[in-house]
Amino acid sequence: MADFSALVRHADKTIQVPRGQVVFSEGDSARVLYAVKRGRVQVSIDGQVVEEIVEGGVFGEMSLIDERSRSATATAVDDTELVPVDREQFDRIVQLNPFLARSFMRLLADRLSAMNERLRSSPQT
Amino acid sequence: MADFSALVRHADKTIQVPRGQVVFSEGDSARVLYAVKRGRVQVSIDGQVVEEIVEGGVFGEMSLIDERSRSATATAVDDTELVPVDREQFDRIVQLNPFLARSFMRLLADRLSAMNERLRSSPQT
Repeated sequence: MADFSALVRHADKTIQVPRGQVVFSEGDSARVLYAVKRGRVQVSIDGQVVEEIVEGGVFGEMSLIDERSRSATATAVDDTELVPVDREQFDRIVQLNPFLARSFMRLLADRLSAMNERLRSSPQT
Repeated sequence: MADFSALVRHADKTIQVPRGQVVFSEGDSARVLYAVKRGRVQVSIDGQVVEEIVEGGVFGEMSLIDERSRSATATAVDDTELVPVDREQFDRIVQLNPFLARSFMRLLADRLSAMNERLRSSPQT
């Protein structure tokens, strides 16, 4: 797992999300990605959990490259502290930590490939 | 189409590839991506052309994040001038042009999604 702690280190602000609260829902407009500073977040699609993000992980990264709305729902499963990162902040942080560019490319490739596996193995409806 | 001309601007060196010559073949070890400075390159998988890369475009970008061998064959279809970029050079160029990180994420998402479409629509053999 790539290390995204640089995102947390350069955070301007954090958001407290109590256990059980939804961070965003499928269909919401998407403008920021989130890094998990503390706690745990479950990502689900159509009610099915597809990933669990813990401290040091990120989610919502498609918002950096795509104007479309959220394709999944994210819910805090512990009391959680998140760092929201928009495009401008992302560019600024990548400039200070250029290795993050490749980490994000790898993350994207891994998640897209996992999503594809699920699509292929799920029954057609 | 994202603009990758910054890769060309910061090039240490270029490679001349005559029309018809193979740049790399499926199964070759992968250490650099290529930006097209001049000319045209066809990318093919199992003998089928899947993409054509022109001036300002890039190919072989999976080498930045994945140690596996080339998954496609690249052939110059015009007399072509290429800029090879390895990981160290990529990090250095991204530091100078942080917007490139998001351009590469978008490129990766687009290509992986196109590859999935092909896999899904192709007859099972």
